[in-house]
Amino acid sequence: MEVLALKLPLIKPGDSVSKAVLKALKDSGRWIEDGDVVVVTEKIVAKAQGRLVALDTVKPSRKAVELARATGKDARIVELILRESRDVLRTGLNLLIVETRQGFVCANAGIDSSNVEEGLVKLHPLDPDGAAEEIRLEIERETGRKVGVVISDSFGRPFRLGSVGVAIGASGVRALWDRRGERDLYDRRLKSTFVAVADLLASAASLVTGEAGEGLPAALIRGLNVLGEGSAKELIRDRSLDLFR
Amino acid sequence: MEVLALKLPLIKPGDSVSKAVLKALKDSGRWIEDGDVVVVTEKIVAKAQGRLVALDTVKPSRKAVELARATGKDARIVELILRESRDVLRTGLNLLIVETRQGFVCANAGIDSSNVEEGLVKLHPLDPDGAAEEIRLEIERETGRKVGVVISDSFGRPFRLGSVGVAIGASGVRALWDRRGERDLYDRRLKSTFVAVADLLASAASLVTGEAGEGLPAALIRGLNVLGEGSAKELIRDRSLDLFR
Repeated sequence: MEVLALKLPLIKPGDSVSKAVLKALKDSGRWIEDGDVVVVTEKIVAKAQGRLVALDTVKPSRKAVELARATGKDARIVELILRESRDVLRTGLNLLIVETRQGFVCANAGIDSSNVEEGLVKLHPLDPDGAAEEIRLEIERETGRKVGVVISDSFGRPFRLGSVGVAIGASGVRALWDRRGERDLYDRRLKSTFVAVADLLASAASLVTGEAGEGLPAALIRGLNVLGEGSAKELIRDRSLDLFR
Repeated sequence: MEVLALKLPLIKPGDSVSKAVLKALKDSGRWIEDGDVVVVTEKIVAKAQGRLVALDTVKPSRKAVELARATGKDARIVELILRESRDVLRTGLNLLIVETRQGFVCANAGIDSSNVEEGLVKLHPLDPDGAAEEIRLEIERETGRKVGVVISDSFGRPFRLGSVGVAIGASGVRALWDRRGERDLYDRRLKSTFVAVADLLASAASLVTGEAGEGLPAALIRGLNVLGEGSAKELIRDRSLDLFR
């Protein structure tokens, strides 16, 4: 497997992520091959969608003001978090862990002010599986190759420290690999019967993309056999099957 | 970044994991370079340590019998899980989520019967950070190169379906990368200030290793700048800082 970081220009509302990715690839002397997976960070997809909010236009509700007081966060950011969420699971110092409208359990509903202009904050992209599909179809149309696309974010998690890459959007990849029925070296059942392939791709990409001032918000992954039907929605554990909800 | 799967022979108690890795590399026409990270699955480390138990030698305690009834698991396996654990966090159908004696929150304390001979089960390796260090020092002595070593496992997690790679042992890699103080493109603070690099390495490797009958229980990761001090213990979130304990 080869993982190649792609240097993209700053993405602005209305820009085409697929065009930026293909241009970066061309500039690096490479091109798409059948089976490649393109991983793009959610930040550039959200920016291309124009999912930016000027904080001074946000009027916090009473509930947002209360939660802001409890967590020490800016009440306007709390207001945006609440608008983007179905449920607040836990609160802590400068932290709200929520279930977003798309079903992802994460800190602060994916709202983030790093790598956006002063005074703005960035929301999660709308319909990230749909956005991944659109990027995939554009790349396939432009190149004539079959590819997969993953939209990645970095999430914290219970029990372990540090963030890891996760997929919040996916298209054309076997996002959740069902290995039930496969057998081991001794013809016995496997321990892990479902593998979160799209999250593994996001984590692998995050080793080369970084999120600081590197300007490397995308990666190409080559040499795997992971294309197929799939979406990041499949990776969401239903609340009723979750022992920690 | 390049990730290369390594084909190893079946590892038996007393075998040297580092020798097997170096032989596999040589056989594939490659060799170690400064900065490489070697990821080995916990299974082969546990096997090399002889961490195999014949199930018919295990006498379940009263508590194990009760938990076996509640979960539908073999009482002898439950007995081994309890012996390997500090705490049982949750139980479900065929599932105990525990905190192991080493502090990892995972299903069934890492006890697993896939890829081991009939009648045996495999425990987690003892002192996995120490085992990673031993493998690292042997590889460095043999090759004269500076490397990192990660011992990987696949864990499920709350909120999301499917297993991902995690590090249960690490040596010579910056396992938990502290990015506090770094700045973004606009000179603002980063969203994720700690990155679980060792878990990302484990996840990247797991895209090429698999756990079925492939016989690919190790991988070489090249092209990153992740060497440094670190251990997998650093990735354990203290119970008092965990909002989901």
